[in-house]
Amino acid sequence: MSTEKRLSLSDKNPDPVLVIGSIAFDDIETPKGSSGRVLGGAASYGAFSSNFFAQPQMLGIVGSDFSSEFKKRFESKGIDIQSVTEDPSGPTFYWKGKYHENFESRETLEVALNVFENFRPELSPAQQKLPFVMLGNISPKLQLHVLEQLKNPHFVIADTINLWIESQHQDLLELISKVHAFVLNDEESVLLTDEPNLILAGQKLQKMGPKTVIIKKGEHGVYLFHENEIFALPAYPVQSVKDPTGAGDSFAGAFIGYLAATGKTNFRTLKAALTYATVLASITIEDFGTQGLERTTPEEIEKRKEALMRMISL
Amino acid sequence: MSTEKRLSLSDKNPDPVLVIGSIAFDDIETPKGSSGRVLGGAASYGAFSSNFFAQPQMLGIVGSDFSSEFKKRFESKGIDIQSVTEDPSGPTFYWKGKYHENFESRETLEVALNVFENFRPELSPAQQKLPFVMLGNISPKLQLHVLEQLKNPHFVIADTINLWIESQHQDLLELISKVHAFVLNDEESVLLTDEPNLILAGQKLQKMGPKTVIIKKGEHGVYLFHENEIFALPAYPVQSVKDPTGAGDSFAGAFIGYLAATGKTNFRTLKAALTYATVLASITIEDFGTQGLERTTPEEIEKRKEALMRMISL
Repeated sequence: MSTEKRLSLSDKNPDPVLVIGSIAFDDIETPKGSSGRVLGGAASYGAFSSNFFAQPQMLGIVGSDFSSEFKKRFESKGIDIQSVTEDPSGPTFYWKGKYHENFESRETLEVALNVFENFRPELSPAQQKLPFVMLGNISPKLQLHVLEQLKNPHFVIADTINLWIESQHQDLLELISKVHAFVLNDEESVLLTDEPNLILAGQKLQKMGPKTVIIKKGEHGVYLFHENEIFALPAYPVQSVKDPTGAGDSFAGAFIGYLAATGKTNFRTLKAALTYATVLASITIEDFGTQGLERTTPEEIEKRKEALMRMISL
Repeated sequence: MSTEKRLSLSDKNPDPVLVIGSIAFDDIETPKGSSGRVLGGAASYGAFSSNFFAQPQMLGIVGSDFSSEFKKRFESKGIDIQSVTEDPSGPTFYWKGKYHENFESRETLEVALNVFENFRPELSPAQQKLPFVMLGNISPKLQLHVLEQLKNPHFVIADTINLWIESQHQDLLELISKVHAFVLNDEESVLLTDEPNLILAGQKLQKMGPKTVIIKKGEHGVYLFHENEIFALPAYPVQSVKDPTGAGDSFAGAFIGYLAATGKTNFRTLKAALTYATVLASITIEDFGTQGLERTTPEEIEKRKEALMRMISL
């Protein structure tokens, strides 16, 4: 990828970002239409999104149906997919879901783990030393397995979903206690902390380990808890949502990418990262799958970031 | 009221603020307890709140049960209640309501309009020339009646509730077309505009007349639409909500009070007014009725405003 396709945020060449998660084919029905089979999965969104800031190295698994056409979509952007396992024993992880009126809830219509059941992320010696890591949504057991391989990482952000909060609670708690930042949405935070007040929930989550906690509230924006500080940011004002899938993964990808690009993790940098994370999420939800991310430009990202800044400036 | 009980925002003495709305006795049940009979009503909250910024002149009606004890609560703060009608023909407006778990919904258990049915706000010649006016929640017909008496007001903000959106739709539309600012909550904005996207709803409301529209989202903060600009502000992080009644009235009161205090209505001033409005709403919901507003101080208000500023500063 030519450097002009990346935002210029630092003079020095940033470290690559390690992005771990699912790679999937999704089939999505929303009030705005049907996607057909589209590229999805946490690692895909995370990689396309973080790639605007630093080079992603993806770890994931794909099946026999993951043709070169799909590989090229990553490679043409300069994303490193050398550590994506190709498993010929079956098809790629498949998810079919449906969003209801106003995107207020979604249901899984069909899910087939396929080769994803065989996923066991193993890091190369070079990857073990990477300082910036996105543990996208996969089972906490696998996230912990990655964490154990890392040699003194500078910043690891982990994401999760309701499924793991309910089915692998102990592993998830162990994971949370060991990462620098934990990100989840409002619904997940209530499920995990049993605390409906999000301010208190965020502080409760910090006590479980991470110095930094991010609670996403969809159209209502996001809270960042860092040490004793709280930062609140509204969502970018999207006028027409097409498909919310991958918003959180795009958010996490941009967040870690920005940290890698600047090489910093202080509160001010985390807040700036949050603004870009919010922008990339807004771009994702305006189209099906990763298409919005693949089509957008650094110029569009900067334009939205400026608009978001105007929305919060006194 | 001694001037040190008011925030110092301008060198010159601000114009009084005209505050029109209900004055009531409320009886409130929440998951946190029962209030017993407490002072309430849009004009009460609006007056106590705006009083931190400029002197309120209240217009409302009370009944035979509104003893001198209650009048003194206003007078001791320096609020002008000379234009509050005392109607001996019956008791004061009474409302009994109940909030459900997590304050997600509320129901009216009992309502008695009492002397409020006789309310017909008539402005003195001096009041007709007041530049800053809060048309608190009463029927749009009465709000229009006040509006017709005003001589070239500088800034009128009107509030409403679901009841009037449903029962006096045409009058409400006429009112909206004639005020400078219209304020409502997210649920009301959907009901009124049939637009679930709040950004689009706000812009739609602006097209109905007012240059300035405010959509309140409770714990998720507030959107301010002004000309072609949007400003988003989070809520002040209240850790324990006791009674949400009057939050919106306190918000509107502080908002118009701040404008009167500064004498300005440009976008920058409206945004600053919004931060104080948010703070006063947060103080109201931490106690039953107007008690939080009556107990708080300019120092506490400034402290919360600074904390809110920190929460949104990059």
